[in-house]
This record gives sequence, C-alpha cells and structure tokens, in this order.
Amino acid sequence: MPHGPDAKQKLREICRIAARVFYAKSYDGASMQDIAEAVGLTKAGLYHHVGSKDRLLFEIMNYGMDILDETVLAPIAGIADPREKLCRTIIGHIDLIVRARDQEITVILHENRSLSGPMRKKINARKRGYIDYLEELIHRIQEQSGKPELIKPRIAAFALLGMINWLYQWYTPEGPVKQEELGQAWAEFFFRGVLGTS
Amino acid sequence: MPHGPDAKQKLREICRIAARVFYAKSYDGASMQDIAEAVGLTKAGLYHHVGSKDRLLFEIMNYGMDILDETVLAPIAGIADPREKLCRTIIGHIDLIVRARDQEITVILHENRSLSGPMRKKINARKRGYIDYLEELIHRIQEQSGKPELIKPRIAAFALLGMINWLYQWYTPEGPVKQEELGQAWAEFFFRGVLGTS
Repeated sequence: MPHGPDAKQKLREICRIAARVFYAKSYDGASMQDIAEAVGLTKAGLYHHVGSKDRLLFEIMNYGMDILDETVLAPIAGIADPREKLCRTIIGHIDLIVRARDQEITVILHENRSLSGPMRKKINARKRGYIDYLEELIHRIQEQSGKPELIKPRIAAFALLGMINWLYQWYTPEGPVKQEELGQAWAEFFFRGVLGTS
Repeated sequence: MPHGPDAKQKLREICRIAARVFYAKSYDGASMQDIAEAVGLTKAGLYHHVGSKDRLLFEIMNYGMDILDETVLAPIAGIADPREKLCRTIIGHIDLIVRARDQEITVILHENRSLSGPMRKKINARKRGYIDYLEELIHRIQEQSGKPELIKPRIAAFALLGMINWLYQWYTPEGPVKQEELGQAWAEFFFRGVLGTS
C-alpha cells in the first residue's frame, strides 16, 4: 500500500466512498468491483491502494476514529475543567454522528463483526481508549462535586456512548428536535444522572 | 403461508434459527439455501413457511417486537404507578437485550435498512408504539414530581432506548458488571436525569 501525505488523502477519499457503498449494500453484499466503480478506479487500482477488502474495512474504521480524535477531541485537549471538557465532548460527538458528511463511516465503525484478528484488536483498542477517556472525565467530575459516587464512571460512560451512537437510528436534523437543543438537553440530562443535581 | 398455532410455533422456530444465520453472515451475505440447511428444511419447504427472504426478515423483526410485548410489557401492564412501571420496563428491556437466547433477534430488529415498503412501515409503527409508551410514562413521572419539566419526554425516551439497545455492543454477562447491578444503576441514573434528584 502506498505511503505519504498524498496517499493518505487518496486513502481517505476511498474510505469515504467505500463507506457509502458498504452502508447501502452491507459489507458482505458489496463487492470490491462495486467499490472500484464507485471510486473510479480499476479493481487492480483499488487493491493497490487498500490491499484487501477487510483491510479496507479496517481503514474505514480507523478513519472513523481519526475523525473523532481530530474534530472532537484535539480541539478541546487544552481544557482543564472536566465538566466543561465532557460537555464539549458530548456536543462534539453528537455533531459527528448527526452530520450527514461522515455518517456512513461512524455507522460502519460499529459493525465490527466482519473484522477479525489483529485488525479487530487494533480498532477495539482505539474504542477502549475513548471509553477510558470518558470514564476518567466522569470520575473527575464526581470527585470535583465532593459528593458520594452515585454511579460507576464506566457504567455511566457506556450509557452516554449508547445514547449518542444510537442517534443514527432515529435522529434527522430536519425533524422537530434541533441539534443544538438535543446536545444541550442530553449534556444536562447526563450531568444530572451522574451528580443527582441540575 | 400456513396459519394456526402450530404454524406460528414453526414460524418462530424458523425465525430464531434464521436470525442466528443472518447475525453471523449478515442479511445480504446469507442465502435462503443457508437458512434452509440450518433449519433442516428444503429450500421449497422454507419458502412454503416464510414466503420470501424479505418476508422472513419482517417476521424476525415482528417476532422481536412480540417478545418485547410478551415478556416485558404484558407482565407489568397492570401496574398503575408510572415510576414503578418504567423501572420494571427498563430492567425487563435490559434483560431482553443481554440474555443470550434472543440476542440475534433483538440485534436484527434494528438492521431495518434491508426492509422496504409496507413491511418497513409496519415494523416502524410498532417501534414508534414503544417510544410513545416510554414518552407517556416519562411525562407522567414528571407530572407526578410536581416540578418543572427538565427534559422533553421524547428526547429522554430516545436517550433511554439508546443506552439499552447499545448494550449488545459491549456488555457481556461474564464481565465485571452484573446484570442486576446494571439495571438498578441505569434506572436510578435515568430517573436522576429526568427529575434532577436521587
């Protein structure tokens, strides 16, 4: 597989288009020929860029985690207050799930039954890293409150992830709930659930 | 398609086995031949019972909603207190998702991109019925509290659904969190989130 900044951009472009094809036809239902046609490459050209079909799925998932890191977490890395940081994380993560541009990628990120071996392990490790990050923030918010722990931070972190990752099943920006209202309402709901106060 | 109680039992048996095959191979990746073999029928025999592949998917999803109605909602239909009723709903729904027996069915229930037309409409209407049920209970709990509404009942209902339906992505009964602890912790977390008090 090619390397360098141009190769990375090309790979990301392939990932975005391939994610749409997998989303429409399912991973098993889409052939490498389908994807090559959508990308505008020959099948041989596609294999040159991505190595194999499962490698392509791995690259899409990796790209999904990159987007989370680059667009949600990196911009708020310098925030010290855990509550402010978690609030910004919640709103940023919701934005990532509901904005149309990358939706297929974030959905496919969780269809990881099709991945196996070291590639599956690597993706799961990146996901666990995010869970650890949420857990740590929740723990610090609880400490900061000075009150007894009302819920284990890890169980609360998984509740939050479920709320947000499930959005693709029901939320449409054209519907009655505006994204800003949703982000604010859920952040406040979550903090009440963790701390027991508004 | 055959009718009567025996035919219904047979259809449910086919649904349970077919759900496992779809879960393992994906809806597009599994052929009717694969499913006939797993069920122990000829392909013609399978078509006799289920009509078509998308009809089979519809029947699995319908069965998934039947299980929710029969095992979670019907037993608590007589409970009048909305908080008690919602608490039992949360714990029952969690049980439905995490118990191994029907897990494939409840997962497939949400892979409804493969369904179209009237069958998709029917399943979506049943899902909406459950959301309406949750929304109504949350609304009554808020009224009962006598306090101002802190979150719209429908937004809270979708948060709850996401928490619970996402469980299949991470929860294993063999892990450190016992199901009873999880159900209790999440029910309390949810009520705090809705009402702002423990």
